[in-house]
Amino acid sequence: MEEGDPTLRLRIFDLNCWAIRYLSKWRQERVRLIGDMLLQDSFDLVLLQEVWSEQDYSDLKEKLRGCYPFSHYFHSGVIGSGLCVFSRFPILDTLLYQYSLNGYPYMLQHGDWFCGKSVGLVVTKISGIIFNVYVTHLHAEYCREKDVYLPHRLVQAWELAQFIRHTSGAADVVLLGGDLNMHPGDVGIQLLRGWTGLRDAFTEAARFEGCEDGCTLIPNNRFTVKAELLPFPQGVRIDYILYKAISSVTVKCEELKTTTGTAPGMDIPFSDHEAVMVTLHIQRQGQAAGDNLSTTEPALVDVVTETRTEVVVGLRAAQQQRHSTGRMAALALLLLLLQAAAALGALAGLVAGQPFPKLSFSLLAFLAIGVLLLATGLHLFHTMEVKMLQGTEEQMRMALRVLRERPSDG
Amino acid sequence: MEEGDPTLRLRIFDLNCWAIRYLSKWRQERVRLIGDMLLQDSFDLVLLQEVWSEQDYSDLKEKLRGCYPFSHYFHSGVIGSGLCVFSRFPILDTLLYQYSLNGYPYMLQHGDWFCGKSVGLVVTKISGIIFNVYVTHLHAEYCREKDVYLPHRLVQAWELAQFIRHTSGAADVVLLGGDLNMHPGDVGIQLLRGWTGLRDAFTEAARFEGCEDGCTLIPNNRFTVKAELLPFPQGVRIDYILYKAISSVTVKCEELKTTTGTAPGMDIPFSDHEAVMVTLHIQRQGQAAGDNLSTTEPALVDVVTETRTEVVVGLRAAQQQRHSTGRMAALALLLLLLQAAAALGALAGLVAGQPFPKLSFSLLAFLAIGVLLLATGLHLFHTMEVKMLQGTEEQMRMALRVLRERPSDG
Repeated sequence: MEEGDPTLRLRIFDLNCWAIRYLSKWRQERVRLIGDMLLQDSFDLVLLQEVWSEQDYSDLKEKLRGCYPFSHYFHSGVIGSGLCVFSRFPILDTLLYQYSLNGYPYMLQHGDWFCGKSVGLVVTKISGIIFNVYVTHLHAEYCREKDVYLPHRLVQAWELAQFIRHTSGAADVVLLGGDLNMHPGDVGIQLLRGWTGLRDAFTEAARFEGCEDGCTLIPNNRFTVKAELLPFPQGVRIDYILYKAISSVTVKCEELKTTTGTAPGMDIPFSDHEAVMVTLHIQRQGQAAGDNLSTTEPALVDVVTETRTEVVVGLRAAQQQRHSTGRMAALALLLLLLQAAAALGALAGLVAGQPFPKLSFSLLAFLAIGVLLLATGLHLFHTMEVKMLQGTEEQMRMALRVLRERPSDG
Repeated sequence: MEEGDPTLRLRIFDLNCWAIRYLSKWRQERVRLIGDMLLQDSFDLVLLQEVWSEQDYSDLKEKLRGCYPFSHYFHSGVIGSGLCVFSRFPILDTLLYQYSLNGYPYMLQHGDWFCGKSVGLVVTKISGIIFNVYVTHLHAEYCREKDVYLPHRLVQAWELAQFIRHTSGAADVVLLGGDLNMHPGDVGIQLLRGWTGLRDAFTEAARFEGCEDGCTLIPNNRFTVKAELLPFPQGVRIDYILYKAISSVTVKCEELKTTTGTAPGMDIPFSDHEAVMVTLHIQRQGQAAGDNLSTTEPALVDVVTETRTEVVVGLRAAQQQRHSTGRMAALALLLLLLQAAAALGALAGLVAGQPFPKLSFSLLAFLAIGVLLLATGLHLFHTMEVKMLQGTEEQMRMALRVLRERPSDG
């Protein structure tokens, strides 16, 4: 912090763009619209999710070159992370962390597994202040009543919080933007905020303009699935911008805006999500302020405990699935061995009378091989899942120990 | 740093344990021997790799409970990371980072892919000094002349360096121990040291005792593969302890020792690798010393450039493989479609004369399905590989830009 103005006003734009090639409606038009708006209304940092076509990223990069000369796309998984950042200021460094759990490969209708869900970090320095800017997208919630992905999403929330805590030691300001797929009161949000000390720009904002309660998935948007929003007639808030100051800097949220179902002045929306736009006021101070762990969260032990309980529930389910897929693989192997024995017997002439009908025999073997391969693959997958859930549970146990010892630790 | 003694002597033990269930010779005896020695000769920190049986870890944990009350096993992949840490001092926090590339799943004889190679971080505080302790194991080098895994190992070295740089902002001292599978002059070691500023305990040590040149894989060890060491009659040094002081602390290496082919006073070795043991002398200073980037490495730009070239070579190979597996999948699909057309034709009576022999027809279909599935899987895998290599190459380009701009940046 050797140069620059003592106060700084920073404008940040965050949007889940819903830009899936072949699947998202009006993708190219909407990406063009997003680019036009970013050119008109100049922000300092733009955090985008679900930009799943690298061509869309390249087009945006080309278009925004003048206004946002720096950008980064985070590569991961088969399809890509979908995460990218555009910046008016030089990007000094980047790092990608892939979450260890991200749904199931066989849930093809819920494509999350194939995207390699991650958190991306870009480091930038503005007026001598170092910003660690994180962008992420957590696993979707397909059914709130019976949310089978809850343990995976909580592991992701935990890993996100851990990644931010461990990588932000040299930063002055931490910013996180993204689609967290959790409602403001959900335990995962409490965990993330409590464990990192991040503040929610929506609740901190001095001025607000946009959808009621800051919702970012609303029935008024023509691309949202209305049936999913039936229990929430106003919509839900699942896209966030969070922030905190680490060293001798204070950050205040002057304003938060959301779009309200359409792109400003247009009749189509940018995406099925609303965009979140904040203006932060950043000021340098003489003395250091803030702690890595927020002391305004006395209930953190309870939050970690509750999360751990959910992770243990997920662990039991994963162990059950590992067991049943293992058993199925063993049965398929047994069937194959029996067939092999019967075939050998027939060859050796030990079995009297008519041999097996060849076609059904080979079809049965084919089936058994298929089941064996599939069940073995699933067994290995659930073994990994068990390990990751166990590992997270152990980390949370350690965190609880450290939290409880904190007062005496000084 | 509010309490404690101004100077501190720290003893660290590092070993690749070669403890693979069913495969490693005399595994249980050797693990028992390692445990005995750790009890007798008390260290402060113990960094182990290739502890692939969690039972071995539990046994060690039970045995060492009195002397090393704190420990952590890093879970990852199907088999586990094999990485664990034992400590005399409380472990405050942990984090695991899985490398994005780690060999090929179809190279079953080189099992690296299945282990989910990672770097583990444990944070501990000793006499008020915060230590970030990293333990890792990089991809093996199976053939030095034609090292097909070089791009993957270099991506890992880069990710390791980036992970250390980004997570050590709040630490006073950084320690890294592990099997890096690289010789001291290799570009990956230069990259790691140059990009993080870590010092090599072997070259810094005031006193040394052990194998010539600090080798950790030697022909004198009964478990090493002698043929692999033919070009290196003294052996090779691939296990390291590296360190650096970040804040107002100085670290000096008083002593480095290695075992010399057998466990001390015994006739069998601990492992096929030699153990590395160092004594560090840590002292607090009044003023801050050290920089995140070592200034004693003027050739860093050259090292990053050379690494980037290797990564690009790997990228071309991966693109080639992605292309050829894609073509094979397309051919298998074509064959299946032709068969389906022929079968439909036969059913509709369009094909005169003898129908196809059912058995060979279904075997051919089975083969085509097998090739289709396999080639599709490989195509997806190489697509991911291409993305990761591209991403790393972009990061390195950014690093080069930042390095070149550094003098004017201040």
